[in-house]
Amino acid sequence: MQSTPILIILAGGASSRIWPLREKSLLRFGTEPLLFVQLRRYQALGFHEIVVVANPENHAEIASLVSQIPQLTVRVVVQTQAKGMGDALLQAAPALPSRAGVPVYVTQVHDIVDEQLHIDMLHAWQRDPSASYIAGFEREDYFPGGYLIVSPSGRLTGMIEKPGAANKPSNLVNIVAHIHADAARLMDAIRAEYVAGDQTDDHYERAMDKLMKEKVFRVVPYHGQWSALKYPWQVLDVMNYYLNKIQGQHVAESAFVAKTATLVGDVYIGEQAKVFPGAAVVGPAYIGAHTIVGNNALVRNSMVLNHCNVGFTTEVARSYVADHCDMHACRVLDSVFAPNVNFSAGCTTANLRIDHGNVPSKIKGQKVDTGRGKLGAIIGQGAFLAVDVMTMPGVKIGEKAQVGPGTHVHQDILDGQRVYVKQEHIVIEPTEAEQSS
Amino acid sequence: MQSTPILIILAGGASSRIWPLREKSLLRFGTEPLLFVQLRRYQALGFHEIVVVANPENHAEIASLVSQIPQLTVRVVVQTQAKGMGDALLQAAPALPSRAGVPVYVTQVHDIVDEQLHIDMLHAWQRDPSASYIAGFEREDYFPGGYLIVSPSGRLTGMIEKPGAANKPSNLVNIVAHIHADAARLMDAIRAEYVAGDQTDDHYERAMDKLMKEKVFRVVPYHGQWSALKYPWQVLDVMNYYLNKIQGQHVAESAFVAKTATLVGDVYIGEQAKVFPGAAVVGPAYIGAHTIVGNNALVRNSMVLNHCNVGFTTEVARSYVADHCDMHACRVLDSVFAPNVNFSAGCTTANLRIDHGNVPSKIKGQKVDTGRGKLGAIIGQGAFLAVDVMTMPGVKIGEKAQVGPGTHVHQDILDGQRVYVKQEHIVIEPTEAEQSS
Amino acid sequence: MQSTPILIILAGGASSRIWPLREKSLLRFGTEPLLFVQLRRYQALGFHEIVVVANPENHAEIASLVSQIPQLTVRVVVQTQAKGMGDALLQAAPALPSRAGVPVYVTQVHDIVDEQLHIDMLHAWQRDPSASYIAGFEREDYFPGGYLIVSPSGRLTGMIEKPGAANKPSNLVNIVAHIHADAARLMDAIRAEYVAGDQTDDHYERAMDKLMKEKVFRVVPYHGQWSALKYPWQVLDVMNYYLNKIQGQHVAESAFVAKTATLVGDVYIGEQAKVFPGAAVVGPAYIGAHTIVGNNALVRNSMVLNHCNVGFTTEVARSYVADHCDMHACRVLDSVFAPNVNFSAGCTTANLRIDHGNVPSKIKGQKVDTGRGKLGAIIGQGAFLAVDVMTMPGVKIGEKAQVGPGTHVHQDILDGQRVYVKQEHIVIEPTEAEQSS
Repeated sequence: MQSTPILIILAGGASSRIWPLREKSLLRFGTEPLLFVQLRRYQALGFHEIVVVANPENHAEIASLVSQIPQLTVRVVVQTQAKGMGDALLQAAPALPSRAGVPVYVTQVHDIVDEQLHIDMLHAWQRDPSASYIAGFEREDYFPGGYLIVSPSGRLTGMIEKPGAANKPSNLVNIVAHIHADAARLMDAIRAEYVAGDQTDDHYERAMDKLMKEKVFRVVPYHGQWSALKYPWQVLDVMNYYLNKIQGQHVAESAFVAKTATLVGDVYIGEQAKVFPGAAVVGPAYIGAHTIVGNNALVRNSMVLNHCNVGFTTEVARSYVADHCDMHACRVLDSVFAPNVNFSAGCTTANLRIDHGNVPSKIKGQKVDTGRGKLGAIIGQGAFLAVDVMTMPGVKIGEKAQVGPGTHVHQDILDGQRVYVKQEHIVIEPTEAEQSS
Repeated sequence: MQSTPILIILAGGASSRIWPLREKSLLRFGTEPLLFVQLRRYQALGFHEIVVVANPENHAEIASLVSQIPQLTVRVVVQTQAKGMGDALLQAAPALPSRAGVPVYVTQVHDIVDEQLHIDMLHAWQRDPSASYIAGFEREDYFPGGYLIVSPSGRLTGMIEKPGAANKPSNLVNIVAHIHADAARLMDAIRAEYVAGDQTDDHYERAMDKLMKEKVFRVVPYHGQWSALKYPWQVLDVMNYYLNKIQGQHVAESAFVAKTATLVGDVYIGEQAKVFPGAAVVGPAYIGAHTIVGNNALVRNSMVLNHCNVGFTTEVARSYVADHCDMHACRVLDSVFAPNVNFSAGCTTANLRIDHGNVPSKIKGQKVDTGRGKLGAIIGQGAFLAVDVMTMPGVKIGEKAQVGPGTHVHQDILDGQRVYVKQEHIVIEPTEAEQSS
Repeated sequence: MQSTPILIILAGGASSRIWPLREKSLLRFGTEPLLFVQLRRYQALGFHEIVVVANPENHAEIASLVSQIPQLTVRVVVQTQAKGMGDALLQAAPALPSRAGVPVYVTQVHDIVDEQLHIDMLHAWQRDPSASYIAGFEREDYFPGGYLIVSPSGRLTGMIEKPGAANKPSNLVNIVAHIHADAARLMDAIRAEYVAGDQTDDHYERAMDKLMKEKVFRVVPYHGQWSALKYPWQVLDVMNYYLNKIQGQHVAESAFVAKTATLVGDVYIGEQAKVFPGAAVVGPAYIGAHTIVGNNALVRNSMVLNHCNVGFTTEVARSYVADHCDMHACRVLDSVFAPNVNFSAGCTTANLRIDHGNVPSKIKGQKVDTGRGKLGAIIGQGAFLAVDVMTMPGVKIGEKAQVGPGTHVHQDILDGQRVYVKQEHIVIEPTEAEQSS
């Protein structure tokens, strides 16, 4: 067995941008949480020592999770405040051997990439463990990330954040898949940045930039899939990544598929799930355990996790629906539902702007271009939408919010808010002739 | 053949509490009106002399009805004013033999109980015809009805109305299934109560209470089903009672069931009924004669009587729909429709409170707890609901009412009322550039 | 081969009354435009010289169209201003031989009649080419058109416009299928009317009326189908005319019909069309090339032309839908859609007045009785209707109009207008207790 660096998985940090969802590392895209899926993959790749940096909110659950993977040494440390990636790595330092020359592989739980990236990184490092390695995502068009500056000899000499399309130093964007030849040296460089004062929170990137001047850093180019989970609508990208892994039709033995139901393409139907008469599941699609796809309902290009009801004539298309959601005679399009959402009869997530432009969404009060031509709603845990609610493209609805019948939701609704619409009615009394008829 | 008492069926009384429905005794839960079904059962049990007490509104129809049952002597008398059950019985008195010692069995048409209750009552009386007998419904939890007071020796010594949960004298609630050993004596006791003055309208109960001090009354305990039809939503209980009697799948020869339609469980499909492609009828369910279940529609746990259209993608769930109703691309949930209701495309009967509490409904201006966690709408004869109307849980809509498109119905609508909603619109004119494009 | 008159097809004139549709002669009721279908039929009947009178708007397209029919001499002339039928015929005059005694057959592209009418006209003329012939539509009830006055000897002596039901001179209504024995003479008579001054625009009828006093005109009676395309809802009549010509089930080899889809009756399914699982096409119905009938959708008694999406659970009933329309989880009832209409999820075209009366529609500001008990909406090219829009019976929506979500459309919307509805919301903030839970 080849040796591997110690793996550091960053799974903490603030998650306000993922609102109204929670804890990216615990989201499930199948039967197991994302972190669990990632850990198992790293295990298969030969990693055996892992440090997970959690935050105070997800620490307990992550600790319980990692204990479920045998034959893997995982230490969970906590970053108590969201003070940047550099600070997160500093929390991991005490969990590492204190000697010099300990290699570490830094990754983030919410970067979803092909296995090939990790294989290529490891191979590069195994060929020359004295250097450090940075994954470089090759893309032609401009992307507002960190660009890698590469010397003619192929050595990495620096990084520049969001240089603008006109000033790209290369076609290589930094993905957080970094092998550092010497963890102690890395930590020292990061500490120096924090001491230097708190301008912006890219201490880690600045520390690396400086290290690159002294030590050999090389790029490992990558041109596979890359889905980063920063904004809640990106759950759909990650979902698609995992949906595309479904091959053929897997129907649990305990599941029921009615004779007049239709399964098309690559489809996973979980334990005790039921697909009722006239319903269709069109792949790639994932139906979780105990979930019911009701009469004449349609689920396509979607994940509906466990214990959900996709009621009569409901359509779920290109959407992610977490556990215990109830949907009835409604349309869930290009949307993300946290657990326990009630989406009543007649509800629709409008998903297309009249001007056919990209759908924007507000993040911390700022309009952000989601980059998506179609986007429905993002709905937090336990929200209740009464009958005939319409949500406009890109709106977000907070946890336990209540939206009254017939409401048009044009703006985000905060956690726990109740929004109602009151109609003015015209009442005409019957004439005497009508009354006696 | 064993002898039987003369049967008195109370089928009159005011029916304001059943609004917007009418005449409980004439409601159909299958092919025949409730009174007819009851009469046939009494005939099968051996009763051959019957007096039905009607009211001025239902008298003619009841008279016509009873004439259709051969080999049964039924006299119909009319109670002209709703002055209580005692008065109703007094109207029956002239139809009884005038001699002493004539036994009578007093029941109400709108108490739906198992046959076993009547069998037990008759057996008890046949063993000792000198005593009188009162059915006692055994239930552990408190019920706001008349409780029976029983002596240690098993003799019935009195009755008390709504004693409160803390003061229950027994677990036995009075059901109106009473055998009186001597009709003449009963009538005298009732007359005495009316002479004594008109305090409340429970003259019959007070008369019985006094008779119990002098004569032997015994309890016949009962622990089967009991559905009383007092409020309109109780139609659903009675419906369930009769739905549960359907055994297996009965499809009339003249009915049409498409190849891709689905029948599940215990289902009755009447003459000339049509179940179109992709539709499903999920039992227990009753589809009446000439009724169409349209393409991709769903009827489950419901009765849809004759000549109805359950249009494309309509869902009828746990609902009672009388003759000649038109439904189209709508959702009828936990609801009761009188005949000739038009329920247009996009309409929904919301059936669940956001707080998941019991649904209340107003009876004569007073909020009444219906005891139901799910309840849709009760809609009177000939009401027209235009497209996209939403009815909130428990609302009632009067006969011939008209509800305009897109209306949210939060309150009861009276007979003949027309309710509309007027939207304010923002109109933006095209620019000149747009006009010329 | 029998000789035939020169055929003049009137395909110009103003089309403001057909708004929000365009160019009647170019509407398609199947694979080819109406004018093309008519031309081919005239070709089959033996006509070989044809003059089409176009208007400036449709001239280019008509010219291109006629060039596609080989072995047929068609000249296209343009009527530059809509100055009546007489003026239109004068535009055709230069295209005719200038000698006397040239017979012409005058018809309109938008009069849809059975072939038999033309056969009867030709036979009558072939028997006696010296006379002129006017088609007389036999109908018992009154129709507000031009009535024919016939002498006892059978000779046509005059015409009277809209005489009123009490003053009908016969049961014969003028259809524009006229054979004139001498075109030159006809043109002279028309010119004389224009010279005489411009009272009303029925110069052609007045000219004929005068010619009848001098020359022999005869009636050719007709009692087949006649659909005139003057108002946009009449598209539905013409559609029905052509739908009824579909015999049996024609499914293109390149089309896909799912195993659980249903085809009923006379149905045409075009090239590359797809009928998805659980969908039904109920004849007479026409599904154009590349059109998708989505899962559990229903198309009945309708034409849906090419490249349309009839989305999940959409119903299209008794409607005409032109190319490239998108419909999704909506109800298109008794409606006419021009190309490129977007009809979003939850939209409904209400088609029935609460009073069950005929549906009116406004033409140039005047209420017109459409004569239809059921009529939905007429929607112009490129209009976008957002989710949950309701259109009231008989409304018209202009080209490129935009209708915001949840709008109730009670009145016509003009070309390019944007109509929105703004709801007032009541927002209740969560209590502190709720926030901390």
